[in-house]
Amino acid sequence: MSNATKTVAQPLDSKATNITWHDQHLSKEARAGLKKQAPCVLWFTGLSGAGKSTVANAFEQALHARGYHTYLLDGDNVRHGLNKNLGFSHEDREENIRRIGEVAKLFVDAGVIVLSAFISPYRRDREMVRALLPEGEFIEVFVSTPLEVCETRDPKGLYKKARAGEIRGFTGIDDPYEAPETPEITLHTDQQDVEASVTQLLGELTRLGYLKA
Amino acid sequence: MSNATKTVAQPLDSKATNITWHDQHLSKEARAGLKKQAPCVLWFTGLSGAGKSTVANAFEQALHARGYHTYLLDGDNVRHGLNKNLGFSHEDREENIRRIGEVAKLFVDAGVIVLSAFISPYRRDREMVRALLPEGEFIEVFVSTPLEVCETRDPKGLYKKARAGEIRGFTGIDDPYEAPETPEITLHTDQQDVEASVTQLLGELTRLGYLKA
Repeated sequence: MSNATKTVAQPLDSKATNITWHDQHLSKEARAGLKKQAPCVLWFTGLSGAGKSTVANAFEQALHARGYHTYLLDGDNVRHGLNKNLGFSHEDREENIRRIGEVAKLFVDAGVIVLSAFISPYRRDREMVRALLPEGEFIEVFVSTPLEVCETRDPKGLYKKARAGEIRGFTGIDDPYEAPETPEITLHTDQQDVEASVTQLLGELTRLGYLKA
Repeated sequence: MSNATKTVAQPLDSKATNITWHDQHLSKEARAGLKKQAPCVLWFTGLSGAGKSTVANAFEQALHARGYHTYLLDGDNVRHGLNKNLGFSHEDREENIRRIGEVAKLFVDAGVIVLSAFISPYRRDREMVRALLPEGEFIEVFVSTPLEVCETRDPKGLYKKARAGEIRGFTGIDDPYEAPETPEITLHTDQQDVEASVTQLLGELTRLGYLKA
């Protein structure tokens, strides 16, 4: 790659005024070339309790066991670190997803298969992340489970608190979940167990060419 | 690792109130085990024009050629993405470094050797990043070059603008650079060329046990 430094137009929403863009010498292709994989973001979205983290964790284990290099971003670990200065206002939720999208993009640039497990209820925010990434590197995985099933599972007791009014703006109760219209992959976790979801994901990613033998 | 979910005390500066910490099933050790390396952050710090990006890029190439998995975070690419909503106020500079530190921590958790190339002029901010990481995973690399030399190089013409008053708060001119007191590695880029710095870094990282044969 070129060693050139070029000045680029600032994005409209950028506050920085005296920076230039360096071409990084080491390319994404070079980094990914060390591996048998095409980097991408598997963006799991779905209601609380749908099984996003459970399936993403199990799938990451399956990928790792096959020698693929992965990283899992989830709401909990990101909330305790990078995004610990964000709350749950609409503005903060949007910034939460934006930062996660940008971090996912850096990991993809590093050659890694990224799994993210966030409710990410708003279509607009998910499309913002999709737009950050080159075509084909954002794979929306809709973890589709009816609200009634999620509420019955209620693994963290959050639905109960939301119904009692102890948590406000809870997705599915008093804040909307906007289901994906054309997700790349849909997992019906109310009709299949975790192993079946992992098998489905392995099959899809192999078929789509992200995993090489 | 344990599959348990445990509730942890919120950090005092966290706004989030209804989150819990998941143990990630796949450990840092498991991810790093796919590689012949101990993940760490090489935090390059020094004046504008000292050669941070140049050396970091060259060193990344040298590591990649040897099969190590690396990623370079630098002020320019992070400023255009994750941190594009930050300016150059003191508060925004601190948040800039904090986010970079948190992202570096995620990459280290993913098993990667991270190189970061930021002026990062304030000792307190660098120590904040050091404190984020487990002991021994933060390696401060002081790119030590006298201001006069950096100002003569002035590759982006920024010193000239700062002297002319067109840029305010420029490190070394009208904002302080606080040199590291006990950096793990010091590179005298005014006395050695890029290849010599790369050789020095390879030697140090091998000696310290981060690179395995």
